[in-house]
Amino acid sequence: MSKNTLRVIPLGGLGEIGKNMLLLEYGDDMVAVDAGVMFPEEEMLGVDLVIPDISYVTERASKLRGYLITHGHEDHIGALPYVLGQAKAPVYASRLTAGLIKVKLREHRSLGNVTINEVTPGEKIKLGCFTTEFFRVCHSIPDAMGLAIDTPQGLVIHTGDFKFDHTPVDGRPSDFAKLASYGNRGVMLLLSDSTYAELPGYTPSEQVVGEALDRVIGRSQGRVIISTFASLISRVQQVADAAARHDRKLAVVGRSMVENVQMSIKLGYLKLPHGLLRRIDEMDSLPDNKVVIVTTGAQGEPTSALVRMANADHREVTLKEGDTVVFSATPIPGNETLVYKTINKLMRRGAKVLTDKAERVHVHGHAAQEELKAMISLTHPKYFIPIHGEYRHLKTHAGIAEALGVEHDNIYVLEDGDVLEVDHKGAKRGARVAAGPIYVDGLARWDMSNIVLRDRKTLSRDGIVVVFIVVGRQDSRVVGRPELISYGFLDEGEQEMLLPPAKELVVQALSAARGQPADLSFIHSTVQDALRQYFFKATKRRPMILPVAMEV
Amino acid sequence: MSKNTLRVIPLGGLGEIGKNMLLLEYGDDMVAVDAGVMFPEEEMLGVDLVIPDISYVTERASKLRGYLITHGHEDHIGALPYVLGQAKAPVYASRLTAGLIKVKLREHRSLGNVTINEVTPGEKIKLGCFTTEFFRVCHSIPDAMGLAIDTPQGLVIHTGDFKFDHTPVDGRPSDFAKLASYGNRGVMLLLSDSTYAELPGYTPSEQVVGEALDRVIGRSQGRVIISTFASLISRVQQVADAAARHDRKLAVVGRSMVENVQMSIKLGYLKLPHGLLRRIDEMDSLPDNKVVIVTTGAQGEPTSALVRMANADHREVTLKEGDTVVFSATPIPGNETLVYKTINKLMRRGAKVLTDKAERVHVHGHAAQEELKAMISLTHPKYFIPIHGEYRHLKTHAGIAEALGVEHDNIYVLEDGDVLEVDHKGAKRGARVAAGPIYVDGLARWDMSNIVLRDRKTLSRDGIVVVFIVVGRQDSRVVGRPELISYGFLDEGEQEMLLPPAKELVVQALSAARGQPADLSFIHSTVQDALRQYFFKATKRRPMILPVAMEV
Repeated sequence: MSKNTLRVIPLGGLGEIGKNMLLLEYGDDMVAVDAGVMFPEEEMLGVDLVIPDISYVTERASKLRGYLITHGHEDHIGALPYVLGQAKAPVYASRLTAGLIKVKLREHRSLGNVTINEVTPGEKIKLGCFTTEFFRVCHSIPDAMGLAIDTPQGLVIHTGDFKFDHTPVDGRPSDFAKLASYGNRGVMLLLSDSTYAELPGYTPSEQVVGEALDRVIGRSQGRVIISTFASLISRVQQVADAAARHDRKLAVVGRSMVENVQMSIKLGYLKLPHGLLRRIDEMDSLPDNKVVIVTTGAQGEPTSALVRMANADHREVTLKEGDTVVFSATPIPGNETLVYKTINKLMRRGAKVLTDKAERVHVHGHAAQEELKAMISLTHPKYFIPIHGEYRHLKTHAGIAEALGVEHDNIYVLEDGDVLEVDHKGAKRGARVAAGPIYVDGLARWDMSNIVLRDRKTLSRDGIVVVFIVVGRQDSRVVGRPELISYGFLDEGEQEMLLPPAKELVVQALSAARGQPADLSFIHSTVQDALRQYFFKATKRRPMILPVAMEV
Repeated sequence: MSKNTLRVIPLGGLGEIGKNMLLLEYGDDMVAVDAGVMFPEEEMLGVDLVIPDISYVTERASKLRGYLITHGHEDHIGALPYVLGQAKAPVYASRLTAGLIKVKLREHRSLGNVTINEVTPGEKIKLGCFTTEFFRVCHSIPDAMGLAIDTPQGLVIHTGDFKFDHTPVDGRPSDFAKLASYGNRGVMLLLSDSTYAELPGYTPSEQVVGEALDRVIGRSQGRVIISTFASLISRVQQVADAAARHDRKLAVVGRSMVENVQMSIKLGYLKLPHGLLRRIDEMDSLPDNKVVIVTTGAQGEPTSALVRMANADHREVTLKEGDTVVFSATPIPGNETLVYKTINKLMRRGAKVLTDKAERVHVHGHAAQEELKAMISLTHPKYFIPIHGEYRHLKTHAGIAEALGVEHDNIYVLEDGDVLEVDHKGAKRGARVAAGPIYVDGLARWDMSNIVLRDRKTLSRDGIVVVFIVVGRQDSRVVGRPELISYGFLDEGEQEMLLPPAKELVVQALSAARGQPADLSFIHSTVQDALRQYFFKATKRRPMILPVAMEV
């Protein structure tokens, strides 16, 4: 690799490639785009969060010139509290994004001496050999931006998460003209959002959602409860506007939603007519047809406000016949079952439930195929890397780029840890670097091979039996009777029936060793074999069996 | 309740009400419709299967006159090996269904002296006061039937799982004329499949799937691998027909698929041209464009043939560039993530992947709204109970029935264990009976409140620490040093660092009791408190802590 090589390295988290972090490296300079988390899948037992493996960065921490953040969603900012400690560098983000980052760092008490710089679209930031211009894009959170990064090997465009909405709620569409001007200058490499690459056509405008919410609120006789993502501030604006038009009051419920609304009002991203917003406990004194509640829980999150309402477990809101609950969101893949269970519970309480299947009460935040084509046409890049998506999305996006004339050999479907190297001779794949998900559990950071998670899986299947055997310190003979403890394996009746004979079995199995100096590995395997057989025969289950010899 | 009361009782399993079993009871007679299993959700740690709670039946086992089985899917027959032992009665089913039941009972070695009666559409079975005529319906397995049950309180129609396909693969559509004749006679109660009650319009005919499969096989240059449900014999027929038309050979891969194909050929439900079917190891000698493989794994089941291929872990099929893999199935809710992961892996191996998003390679087996309306119009029942669906489906179906003129007060949205009582004065809800899911784990049968499953959940989150303390039998004093064992909690480095001080901490905590007769509950709570605090501070995790005192 020559000194004049630009290296592009996606570092993801779970499944979605290049989503949580992407590195650009040239000579002695490196910049990171985004630093996000993923939420653990159900099989990652007990894991709190998943962050990208940044060992490649920490080993070169002195080269890192900054973090360029595209927008304020968790999967783009959530890892900052974790990575800033290991690889400190200034953070660059839009105003709202910077606000959300500060809240996050404060929660983690890791604000310390981190520099967070607010940038505005059009502003240029020079970090080593990289000069970045931020440009405006539409997404499902205000103040999202893409990046135009001038590198010694040419212009790199990173779209961030984007869509082309010509009538967004905040009146600030993605910057077509800017993108075209980059295209005219010549784009060496385009990195583009692939999340919805499988969806034909265009993503409808937020405008149609505003109209649908207006219809729903207008025609409902009772209270209207609208659940959406806490970060979808433009949706809250739409709900507020519709509530005001139909002479209703608005209450916000759910901790993260309340926090985001407060910050958005403060920073000017949410504009509410005076007197519209009420505390939730003030709503009880209003007639039902004067009430709109906006809340979290659209993904069926077990501790969210909406799910607590569905479980009749919410302190302030008790559902009743005549309420209308709107899911202004679609289930994220993997959350479908939780969402459907929540809908069932809401309906059991008499609420009418409306999802985007019946009415356009939600559009997503990512470009569909025609928009992806527009992005490629505007920038007509020499090289193309689809990012932000599972492999199937990247492949589909690659096919779209090829159909639009990007040369087949100039399209790179990378995985996390893959490296694209670009120099004056062209582009090629470099040697892979460390990448992959890191599981955060309390203070621990584990990679996928960690034994603790495998042990939990074993425990979760059939539980555990611990066998204690006391051995004399002086003569190494087995002393007294063994003790058996089972957990997550036998119910009460089975314990009474099976544990005494199991104990007897251990005694017998050890009788060969009685009076002899104890051979611990012999004790271990003898006890394990005897109990494994016995318990499987009696229960057809295979608990973890852990014999422990202890000297007194 | 008068002696002349008909009782209708759905007994479900997981979420889908009345799906796995439904009871009709009158005087001294009872019949059960279906006896199926559900597969455990991910949170039901270690559970093998879920069966309905049939304690209501077993307490009245002498009244049970028979099991009427609508079709051969697992969620309708899978519980027979479990319930026949507790409540024996003859089984009535169509030829193919009976064949599948026999296989199942043989696997469980519970065929014993169970009577399995084959019935054909139009045949009438008298069981006590219930006379049942079976009628033909279309579904995603051949030989499905609905039930017209003459009871002392009038005619009850149970649709089973159904759709109205006018051009089904086997040429045997749902019996419209029969349904109309029941309607003319007067239907007291309709129990109808609600699975797709939220879907507007008509379910397209299987014919369009046949055409799509024909196109895909016709235009593919390489091998075509088609995955579907093992029980969807008509789909195998369509694949076979298309393979024959395009001069390809067919191999069947996957244990359950092979078994079902063999049985279906034997019983005449699958008609393959001579020489079409080949062993999979014979396929290697054929050119790729002569090969079609039909296989299991369309739901991303981890041990299925397709997933093994995706993992490059299948003995006989190695995927390569040029292969086309077709998912002739849609993901069952909850399976989406598994299916998408499988697609990603298949694409990484170079296979082209086709799902029903791109081409009509699948239609489901249930009636959509227009078909549900047709069913209600044909039978125009006095009472209506939507069954087979989550609560949200039942509610929607109830709304459809009301829109078609069934009286609001005559529509009963029941949950499992709810009872509808019908006598000469009319219908009303009766007192609920025992119902709900029973978890099968090995030989154990547990209900939802079982502590073992809750303990496994605890274990799966942060693991376990067992603390052993030895107490002298004579003087009840603490002897020697405690022993600590952790599992699923600490990684190796943490164990080395944290366990010795933890042991020391237990010693200190017990020092108050040293030399004193041991108070076991004092030891227990002291040790638990000390370790809980210590471990949380050191790891921010909360393992299960289990102190055990043992006398020597």
